[in-house]
Amino acid sequence: MSDVNRQWLLASRPQGMVGEDNFRLVEGPIPEPGDSEYLVRTLYVSVDPAMRGWLVDHPSYVPPVGIGEVMRASGVGRVAASNSPDMPVGGLVTGLTGWQDYAVARKGEGFRPLPDGVSPEAALSVLGLTGMTAYFGLFDVGKLEEGETVVVSGAAGAVGSVAGQIAKIKGCRVVGIAGSAGKCAWVTGELGFDACIDYRAEDVGRRLRETCPDGVDLYFDNVGGPILDQVLARINERARIVLCGAISSYNATEPQPGPSNLGVLIPKRGRMEGFIVFDYAGRYKDAAREMGAWIAAGKLTSREQLVEGLERAPAALRMLFEGANIGKLLVKVAD
Amino acid sequence: MSDVNRQWLLASRPQGMVGEDNFRLVEGPIPEPGDSEYLVRTLYVSVDPAMRGWLVDHPSYVPPVGIGEVMRASGVGRVAASNSPDMPVGGLVTGLTGWQDYAVARKGEGFRPLPDGVSPEAALSVLGLTGMTAYFGLFDVGKLEEGETVVVSGAAGAVGSVAGQIAKIKGCRVVGIAGSAGKCAWVTGELGFDACIDYRAEDVGRRLRETCPDGVDLYFDNVGGPILDQVLARINERARIVLCGAISSYNATEPQPGPSNLGVLIPKRGRMEGFIVFDYAGRYKDAAREMGAWIAAGKLTSREQLVEGLERAPAALRMLFEGANIGKLLVKVAD
Repeated sequence: MSDVNRQWLLASRPQGMVGEDNFRLVEGPIPEPGDSEYLVRTLYVSVDPAMRGWLVDHPSYVPPVGIGEVMRASGVGRVAASNSPDMPVGGLVTGLTGWQDYAVARKGEGFRPLPDGVSPEAALSVLGLTGMTAYFGLFDVGKLEEGETVVVSGAAGAVGSVAGQIAKIKGCRVVGIAGSAGKCAWVTGELGFDACIDYRAEDVGRRLRETCPDGVDLYFDNVGGPILDQVLARINERARIVLCGAISSYNATEPQPGPSNLGVLIPKRGRMEGFIVFDYAGRYKDAAREMGAWIAAGKLTSREQLVEGLERAPAALRMLFEGANIGKLLVKVAD
Repeated sequence: MSDVNRQWLLASRPQGMVGEDNFRLVEGPIPEPGDSEYLVRTLYVSVDPAMRGWLVDHPSYVPPVGIGEVMRASGVGRVAASNSPDMPVGGLVTGLTGWQDYAVARKGEGFRPLPDGVSPEAALSVLGLTGMTAYFGLFDVGKLEEGETVVVSGAAGAVGSVAGQIAKIKGCRVVGIAGSAGKCAWVTGELGFDACIDYRAEDVGRRLRETCPDGVDLYFDNVGGPILDQVLARINERARIVLCGAISSYNATEPQPGPSNLGVLIPKRGRMEGFIVFDYAGRYKDAAREMGAWIAAGKLTSREQLVEGLERAPAALRMLFEGANIGKLLVKVAD
């Protein structure tokens, strides 16, 4: 057990692309848990596109991370010391570790034990918030129906890869959109999507016409921007556009134009709806049970890409916006 | 009874602003009703922004009007001759007269008798499709709740003026957006909206902040464009954007940029949904009963602006897009 606690603090608010210079790595003593508290040794931390939004000084669904505060992040850790009988030393927990080696917590605040048989990687991906996002976005927001044509952008990302697989399990035709031939090969190969469009190399509009000959019933949108506009041009009556993320604009310095095809929502009676996965926290367990069964049956797979070392967390965050990851990107902090 | 039937045919598809040159006035004999058919003498025809969409050669919720066909339009007429016992001569009917002096119809196809006590003007406005549009847009699409803050664009138009009044009846704070001081005076005066923003003379963003201090729960959008973007910047959690129309772009020759603030739908869990009033035809009667009671109680008013003469129908259509009308614009064809 190391005797220092490294912490990544927010040093400045990014203008444009987030980078390492927006964070500052500090070292301090390992905190001592007080009465009823326990100490968590961080093993993995998550990097997610949504974290970019937490850096903006603007009221949103969670308060922004303050300058000088530890960067907020989901993670998995092991209880290293405990004054809380419900949290025995050695147990694995998941919650908001932040980008730091050690966090102090108190029962009911921010951490819960990892369910039996769930690996730390899975707890931060397919059975964690990204999997939950795919699940509730498709079913609760998107009202997915068997046999529909579903398009998923960010298809090789943590959320998109799960969303598309679930839609396949539910008997849909699923077309992914991703940013390289390698990503598309994984999406149509291992994940079993019906098709995948490489938006950097192909004409998205033409390929949507080819791959969705019957139009689009549900669009699970992780990227926003021009791709959203192209998909709108292909929607069917009563189509649902699930707005999960808009990664194409998170680092923009200027307002980005919205989709010029938005007006088709009127004749098509289309619905576009945003959501935040935290609203479904009361039902995570049910979703995890169903998704766990799909994993056990070999129908749902996940892939994690590990970046080694807490010191590389800001670089890992930037990788997301450069499209450098396939599957869920995690930072491994300790064994 | 005149002995010619004047008809406005679609002569060409408009590029940009629709105008008289896109139509051609022809004269022909008055048609003879056949077995089980009847002849309708047109008294009023409607001009509606949606008609601009019917001129575009693109599949939509109704087929486009063909070149050389009579311009499609709602209207009110009187049965002038009848071989249909259910449609006695002299009865008032409403339906798709088209822009012509006379139409031939058969029972169950396109026309229904005017309910007792409903004037031809009301049958084409507050108790017609525009009123129905306001009603089902607010309740079925917008899920209007008492006490909410509701913003209505096109507030002095046929649909907006009714939508705002209904929201007032339901105990909401209602802010209109319209295109002149005169329109705003009518909207806040006779219609009783809480405020009205003159988008041509005022800073819409600043005025929305002033008039909607608690944010916007429901936006009934008739115009699209930059105003939609400004309203998005003020939406509350779980806000609904009812996409009824997008008059700002109907005559555009280039794709219009969408709202750059669209991404706020994600943290706000906002919903944006389009609709077509025809889908609610089975419930028009119920809505008309409720709205009729509001009219009788002096809670709901309507205003019609008459343009005299079928020959001026294309000019009247253009007036809509120039913002020249207050309330429902109708063309009076005959006494």
